[in-house]
Amino acid sequence: MRSLPTNAPSPARLVAARAAGVSPFLAMDVLSAAKAKERRGEQVVHMEVGQPSAPAPRLAREAASAALARGHIGYTEALGIPSLRERIASHYGETYGVEVPPERIVVTTGSSAGFVLAFLSLFEPGARVAITAPGYPAYRNIFGALGIEVVPVPVGPSTRWVMDGDAVARMHAERPLAGVLIMSPANPTGTMMSRQALASLAAKCRELGIWLVSDEIYHGLTYEAPAETALRFDDETVVVNSFSKYYCMTGWRIGWLVVPDALVRPIERLAQNLYISPPYLSQVAAEAAFSAVEELEAVKAGYAANRAMLLEELPRIGLGEGPSVDGAFYAYIDVTRFTNDSAEFCRRMLNEAGVAATPGLDFDLERGARYLRLSFAGSHEDCREAIARLRGWLA
Amino acid sequence: MRSLPTNAPSPARLVAARAAGVSPFLAMDVLSAAKAKERRGEQVVHMEVGQPSAPAPRLAREAASAALARGHIGYTEALGIPSLRERIASHYGETYGVEVPPERIVVTTGSSAGFVLAFLSLFEPGARVAITAPGYPAYRNIFGALGIEVVPVPVGPSTRWVMDGDAVARMHAERPLAGVLIMSPANPTGTMMSRQALASLAAKCRELGIWLVSDEIYHGLTYEAPAETALRFDDETVVVNSFSKYYCMTGWRIGWLVVPDALVRPIERLAQNLYISPPYLSQVAAEAAFSAVEELEAVKAGYAANRAMLLEELPRIGLGEGPSVDGAFYAYIDVTRFTNDSAEFCRRMLNEAGVAATPGLDFDLERGARYLRLSFAGSHEDCREAIARLRGWLA
Repeated sequence: MRSLPTNAPSPARLVAARAAGVSPFLAMDVLSAAKAKERRGEQVVHMEVGQPSAPAPRLAREAASAALARGHIGYTEALGIPSLRERIASHYGETYGVEVPPERIVVTTGSSAGFVLAFLSLFEPGARVAITAPGYPAYRNIFGALGIEVVPVPVGPSTRWVMDGDAVARMHAERPLAGVLIMSPANPTGTMMSRQALASLAAKCRELGIWLVSDEIYHGLTYEAPAETALRFDDETVVVNSFSKYYCMTGWRIGWLVVPDALVRPIERLAQNLYISPPYLSQVAAEAAFSAVEELEAVKAGYAANRAMLLEELPRIGLGEGPSVDGAFYAYIDVTRFTNDSAEFCRRMLNEAGVAATPGLDFDLERGARYLRLSFAGSHEDCREAIARLRGWLA
Repeated sequence: MRSLPTNAPSPARLVAARAAGVSPFLAMDVLSAAKAKERRGEQVVHMEVGQPSAPAPRLAREAASAALARGHIGYTEALGIPSLRERIASHYGETYGVEVPPERIVVTTGSSAGFVLAFLSLFEPGARVAITAPGYPAYRNIFGALGIEVVPVPVGPSTRWVMDGDAVARMHAERPLAGVLIMSPANPTGTMMSRQALASLAAKCRELGIWLVSDEIYHGLTYEAPAETALRFDDETVVVNSFSKYYCMTGWRIGWLVVPDALVRPIERLAQNLYISPPYLSQVAAEAAFSAVEELEAVKAGYAANRAMLLEELPRIGLGEGPSVDGAFYAYIDVTRFTNDSAEFCRRMLNEAGVAATPGLDFDLERGARYLRLSFAGSHEDCREAIARLRGWLA
């Protein structure tokens, strides 16, 4: 770095550009506004945040209670408690028939920490990484905070909202990419990549020598066919996952990564410094959650019922032509017939109808103003109530 | 960013330099080795990691139990549960007589998250920030991961391990600094800045127009006089704190920031994207911990007894001339008479004497090979046992 002149004016106390430039996560702003409304005693139907209304499974809560009773809740190994890493590793054999050694599992403080650890260890400042638009908004903002350039790949209903290998190869030829980040089932659309599309994209990334990061946070929540892990198609894929969705453990902040051998030690060092260790109680509870399949499948059956109802009712009240929802618990709805400013539309929907939804601009800076996202992770009663309120409000 | 030539060779799948360059947190490596030893059935006295052996206070654990029984453990506001922010704000009035509005409190996933949020929002990539050497190793590594240049300021016994305002002004004149980060009581030395030294440094930073970040994680754990918050001397100081130390809540991963008004919204956006929210149970427990003063003061009395014993015994077994320990629960010990490689010395101490300690290189890349850190946050029996084992081993 070049030397600056002596007595140069000192930097003023300003907010750093990389923080000032982060766009707000509108879903969280809506949540905040909705909670404020509730504190005033008003009722809100929450369709805005992607979190299950079901509590963590009984076995998970019992494991946490038992740990509380034992008393000592200390730091763990930065990569997570060994027995939890082993349990996650065996999940890959049981669920996908893919062998992953426990040494390649990194327990993280939610998938949020998984992203930070993965991005810091995979991508240099200035690296270019392709993501779909629409997509999970935190991707863009985490990349921005870490100095990584986002290359949005517009996808839409005509391609079933999926990025394909040929598009990646073309972009890479124009200006090299360092990686591709995908999510299937996806937020906000609920669509899944077919096995063939996933295999082909993984092969293309491998051929180009660029990283593939596969966000598999909605695995387990599929309604037509189970999801396939990208690890099946390329063992060097970096997989991000979490206990927040299928396992109903959002507020516990617990997730995991599967990484290639060469990344384990660099990520361990980053994790030691940036997180010390994931929360202890959450790790204990997460391990127990793997044994709660029966309870979790019942929760999922509830989402399936919500999904069926919404796919039937939404077109009837003028919201969407029946969006395609293969997995997750979201419907991404074109509201062009009502507005060209879905953020304002969502504000009014919250204030006037008491239904909280997320504006599409969270997910797509270009075309999101024409969309909103409804989450159907709540109770069936909430979904019915939302439809009833919206029917009246839209009429 | 300039356009790269078409058909340039693709980046290989390499570990990013900013991750590959992170030095390991040796304390965590020692912890890992110690836990492995214990899994083999061997007994280890833990003097390596700065964590209380006492559990979180009963009231905190009961609050978490009650929340578990209620069942739903979801996301909270990104800045934390409002009642917890209010409770933390009132702590400043009660403890220091300083008024801080709840709006300026940011609840974080441990002080680790507090550092990341503060550094990202205060410092541009390439900014220069002064820290003491020795100092908390994660500072250096977090700064490195975020592209911020660390300017180490060597401190030692002759200045009671404290950075002074004149040294900062000289460095700033040579090449501008963007900020100064201090910790008092300090890790690894346990020394405190006097009220005068803190006031003078805060005034100097304000005069120079550079940020002051004050890590007050060891507040509450002082043995001669209470610690003063840097907020008293400059309301624009960014304060980092945590429930890990005085409140005995390490594995809960919960802490807080106090920030100037202008930083609240940028930090909220960063937090929404990088963390979503701090862990719910930990927030509930933390709020209750403020009411557990009696239990916590008893724990602190235990540290005080450990400290008194160590300050008496350590010189007798040849470890240090009686280090100065004003606060925290560390003794930073010069081991020059035994070794010029304290990392190897610590490995042998763990293997041969079954006492885990942290090599000084964690804290000071220049002179740390001549030091090690003992944490006396464990039980009195552990401290006694450590002295007994070390007496035999050193003889």
